[in-house]
Amino acid sequence: MPEAASARPAAPAALGASEFDRDTAVTPREPGVYDIDLSAGWTIMNAVNGGYLLAVLGRALADALPHSDPFTVSAHYLTASQPGPAVVRTEVVRTGRTLSTGQASLYQLDDEGRETERIRVLASYGDLDALPDDVRTTAKPPAIPPMEQCLGPADGRAPVDVGSAITDRLLLKLDPSTLGWALGQPSGKGEMRAWFGLADGRDPDPLALLLAVDALPPTAFELGLSGWVPTVELTVHVRSRPAPGPLRVSVTTRNLAGGFLEEDGEVWDSADRLVAQSRQLARARLA
Amino acid sequence: MPEAASARPAAPAALGASEFDRDTAVTPREPGVYDIDLSAGWTIMNAVNGGYLLAVLGRALADALPHSDPFTVSAHYLTASQPGPAVVRTEVVRTGRTLSTGQASLYQLDDEGRETERIRVLASYGDLDALPDDVRTTAKPPAIPPMEQCLGPADGRAPVDVGSAITDRLLLKLDPSTLGWALGQPSGKGEMRAWFGLADGRDPDPLALLLAVDALPPTAFELGLSGWVPTVELTVHVRSRPAPGPLRVSVTTRNLAGGFLEEDGEVWDSADRLVAQSRQLARARLA
Repeated sequence: MPEAASARPAAPAALGASEFDRDTAVTPREPGVYDIDLSAGWTIMNAVNGGYLLAVLGRALADALPHSDPFTVSAHYLTASQPGPAVVRTEVVRTGRTLSTGQASLYQLDDEGRETERIRVLASYGDLDALPDDVRTTAKPPAIPPMEQCLGPADGRAPVDVGSAITDRLLLKLDPSTLGWALGQPSGKGEMRAWFGLADGRDPDPLALLLAVDALPPTAFELGLSGWVPTVELTVHVRSRPAPGPLRVSVTTRNLAGGFLEEDGEVWDSADRLVAQSRQLARARLA
Repeated sequence: MPEAASARPAAPAALGASEFDRDTAVTPREPGVYDIDLSAGWTIMNAVNGGYLLAVLGRALADALPHSDPFTVSAHYLTASQPGPAVVRTEVVRTGRTLSTGQASLYQLDDEGRETERIRVLASYGDLDALPDDVRTTAKPPAIPPMEQCLGPADGRAPVDVGSAITDRLLLKLDPSTLGWALGQPSGKGEMRAWFGLADGRDPDPLALLLAVDALPPTAFELGLSGWVPTVELTVHVRSRPAPGPLRVSVTTRNLAGGFLEEDGEVWDSADRLVAQSRQLARARLA
């Protein structure tokens, strides 16, 4: 049991009975079409968090496809989502024995009452529990201090809170060495690392990994940029079902160029397994 | 002018007049729908190369969308393509001032004459020439020997040819330190590096980058695996228009686990600019 587990609530929310499950629950309207009320509880800098949206679409596809675990999900972000009603329309693209592929789009009504597409994903699903145990990896877990040495919005030493309701839903403890931006002293390195969990103690599952890869402050902050870093495209590979307990997330940017940057994410579980890899292309506001 | 340029033909094929342009040319059938005859010249281990397919879909979307340069393309591979007739159906998802998003699918007829989807992509396009010149990157070009010290199928020292017509279309010179597999002595490291160009000397453009990221032998070979490594999903970010001359491509795998692996690709141009980043999720046949 890692040290960090001591930070979990005494009576953690069970899978299926948490804020995350409640707020990503989709209601079937007709086959392949789902209604959802996007919660204002998952906003970051007053926009609905991209990882939360990915989890909503991921849940709809888990229902629509014969397989229930996302293996690879590619999302293109089209227009900014708002808290409130939305509809998810899914399409089964191909079903196979071990993998199925689907597509899903989330729509909201615009000011004139027209259905506007917010985000579209293509995804391949499978059964993580059916995979062989074989692990040959050269990847190393991120070098991140124990959770009690990391800092969250409630720790007061740094102005981590950026007016984001999502901070109340997450147990996000940032590595102090990637927090220079919050003190006006960005490191210049495109790195962000954190312990990640759901605040109500619900353990991670594959859908929570879709949230985890887009939950940290932008690496652009440590590169000395400020302001919004909108995602153009985000792809996640879920490589294993996460073990219970807190996750470690690292996000790295190497190539800030031409007004765009990539964010490469890794998520490690409490059993030291690399459970998800992600990459997004985002726009940077050059300083 | 890099040393490698000396290996280019005396009279290189111009953009638009090359084997690559001829074999990726799509013919409009009706708005948004394109016919193509998939060439047998781009097969690898007797299957149509995934990068060639990506370039075909990329060309169709360049025609269908108001922007002509792929910025990020996410492809899910559904069924194995065969040389011969195919149809590409595109959809304009969203058009914006600086970015447009589209979707494209490639279909072929199966043995019973039914249209079968081979590959589906979601892509966002823009104008690479409109991007600011700002480059702040910590990425380093791959350590690869000069081209004359690298080995291709015609160099005879290694059995690089695996019955693949594509080797005649490409100028692919592999770093000897990633060629152990061809001598029965895989390094155990998930690395593959090569000089890459089109054999007829046509200079690289953004569509050729879509080919370049999936043109090297699988990293799985250096990990001691053999056989086919089918791509499930492949995403490419094109970050800059490549300068004329040969490209350097590196592909790295860190996480071979549960019967899947990721391949992270980088493409560098002759001006030492990181022009494309890619990642694919592929199935591994565990030895």
